Amino acid sequence: MTGLRVDSLETPALVLDRARLVRNVGRMAARARELGVPLRPHLKTPKCVEVAELLADAGAAGFCVSTLREAGYFHQAGFDDLFYCVPFAPGKAERAAALADDGCRLTLMTDSLEGAEAAVAAFGNRSDRGRAVPLRFVVEIDVDAYRSGISLGGDALERAARTLDGSGRTGFAGIMSYAGASYGRTPGEAAALAAEHVTALDNAKQRLDSAGLACEIVSFGSTPAVLHADALPGITEARCGIYAFQDLFQAGIGAAGIDDIAVSVAASVIARQPEHNRFVIDAGGLALSKDRSTAGKPFDAGYGLLADGATGRLLDDLIVSAVSQELGLVTTRDGSPVDLAAYPVGRIVRVLPNHADMTAAAYDRYHVVEGGNPEVVAVWSRSNYW
Amino acid sequence: MTGLRVDSLETPALVLDRARLVRNVGRMAARARELGVPLRPHLKTPKCVEVAELLADAGAAGFCVSTLREAGYFHQAGFDDLFYCVPFAPGKAERAAALADDGCRLTLMTDSLEGAEAAVAAFGNRSDRGRAVPLRFVVEIDVDAYRSGISLGGDALERAARTLDGSGRTGFAGIMSYAGASYGRTPGEAAALAAEHVTALDNAKQRLDSAGLACEIVSFGSTPAVLHADALPGITEARCGIYAFQDLFQAGIGAAGIDDIAVSVAASVIARQPEHNRFVIDAGGLALSKDRSTAGKPFDAGYGLLADGATGRLLDDLIVSAVSQELGLVTTRDGSPVDLAAYPVGRIVRVLPNHADMTAAAYDRYHVVEGGNPEVVAVWSRSNYW
Repeated sequence: MTGLRVDSLETPALVLDRARLVRNVGRMAARARELGVPLRPHLKTPKCVEVAELLADAGAAGFCVSTLREAGYFHQAGFDDLFYCVPFAPGKAERAAALADDGCRLTLMTDSLEGAEAAVAAFGNRSDRGRAVPLRFVVEIDVDAYRSGISLGGDALERAARTLDGSGRTGFAGIMSYAGASYGRTPGEAAALAAEHVTALDNAKQRLDSAGLACEIVSFGSTPAVLHADALPGITEARCGIYAFQDLFQAGIGAAGIDDIAVSVAASVIARQPEHNRFVIDAGGLALSKDRSTAGKPFDAGYGLLADGATGRLLDDLIVSAVSQELGLVTTRDGSPVDLAAYPVGRIVRVLPNHADMTAAAYDRYHVVEGGNPEVVAVWSRSNYW
Repeated sequence: MTGLRVDSLETPALVLDRARLVRNVGRMAARARELGVPLRPHLKTPKCVEVAELLADAGAAGFCVSTLREAGYFHQAGFDDLFYCVPFAPGKAERAAALADDGCRLTLMTDSLEGAEAAVAAFGNRSDRGRAVPLRFVVEIDVDAYRSGISLGGDALERAARTLDGSGRTGFAGIMSYAGASYGRTPGEAAALAAEHVTALDNAKQRLDSAGLACEIVSFGSTPAVLHADALPGITEARCGIYAFQDLFQAGIGAAGIDDIAVSVAASVIARQPEHNRFVIDAGGLALSKDRSTAGKPFDAGYGLLADGATGRLLDDLIVSAVSQELGLVTTRDGSPVDLAAYPVGRIVRVLPNHADMTAAAYDRYHVVEGGNPEVVAVWSRSNYW
């Protein structure tokens, strides 16, 4: 217990509902058990040791990170099986090698033959002060032309794998794909997409096997694709991230309910403007992020959906309709009159975010609550920047 | 000198061109001298002591801050005349009072009668452990129905001023207005808007004078309105912020040239995708922000405009057309072929931001360069969060 209450915090402040978090984590862990696939959760959303501990307790088989700073932070906290799953920039070789030399079991990735060659050159060139632990690389393949990955059309995949395998300082560990296109699909479409990825990964693995390049890792990800997959045969790890926190974008595509959203921003009412049918809160573009991923969707919530400060329960279909750096303007979604009597200056509300990753990144700590209870039971810190 | 080069930084990294900064700061300082009005620059964009020192050297008459955390940070660094110009939330009374008790000459503001009453109640109720320095309040008036301020229609302005004046722990210091509507106007329209604000502020001041409420401060702001104003009679301070850094939004509305933009993000090429006519950089939604304030404008630059890593010179009309958390996809603005041969994996480029405030907030430090010289001459830190 911290002695703090969520409805009397200095605002804006980031709030994390541990009860919802635990439920979300348990649900995905059960899903992974059902599929018989180890789960490698992504820490790019929480960036928080206590959340990683909770995921580990639920059976996580290692973690994904989105920056080497995260890798260092989680390594310091004792988490050693870390997959830095952003295509590797050669300028980061020294830092990655230092982590590996320090005992971090770091896996890296690339999504092109050129990337593989650049990585090998960068690791070969660096001044080798340490124990020269090989840096394991996973190669991303392109299944659905979504964003990245080596095309399976030619022999670039084999060449990339061999390039990484043949270097003293790097190693080839396997392949991965990302079903980014699964966001916004129906459950049936997401399941079909997952099946397409599984087949493509299996074909790629067999080609590499035939070339004498063993895939220890066959990694597949995206929260909706894993949630809805019928089966994931041959997949050695499922990468998912946003499921732990959820957000309005996920709720809008049916991957979560509003009541699953575990992260929110506590904000104070700072002015009522009856002439504009709105009130003003002290959470603006910096506190909420300018993510508008719900824009133009039936679920459009402006810059966020309002909930009660103390309990987290939704309020009157109010949304943050506009932001400046430190101010948010709150109106009803449909333009009907705002019940301004209920929102005096000083009242603390909460804002559910469009995109949890972007919103949480503006804060250095979480104020942890349990369900509808206003007591802040803990304060957890985050690792930001690069 | 740091021994670092901007084109070999670990990326993403925030870059600040001091030569451009100095030129921007000098230009606005000259403009303020021409208008005969003291300049109170806003520190919400830089959040950096060294930038404040540079502004002070150019004649700044105090500063504006956007959070109490900034106030504390600048107070620690010896800057004491600080105007926290976000409508005051009563929950921040204890922290504000502690700053005042510690010797910070902190000015606060409110934009409603209710806000004034809530502030007086909050300061009255707090446990008074210190010297009880009165907290000076400025009241915002609404001139153009842009965002906030007390309407001049009734007697709310006088009542708010008297409420603040009559309390032992608060004081009434004057009035302010913000010409937010000046963004996106032509120079002539911005000048007309400035004149409208000057008249409204003068009328409000005279009303308050008649009521025995003296306005020591008559504060007016927005970068375009001050840039283009014909004269600012009666204004005791001009509040401007973005002019020091500039950004693509400012350039798009004609308030700056592209060559005035002093802040940018260094990023590495991490993959080339000829099949998609694009390359990928390691600066995405977190590193650039999701601000799309140039969207739908002739100047639309996606999530940023590309420049050379070493020199900062613009490159081939390339823009960041899409982002995920850590990746940016770079294409030509008009869809013409990208000269991919020029962008091998590992090349460092710079991205000019849509909105400097939002982009800089993702970093804890600036890598400072001088004009087109790639040497990093200093590293300056920032104060983030709340």
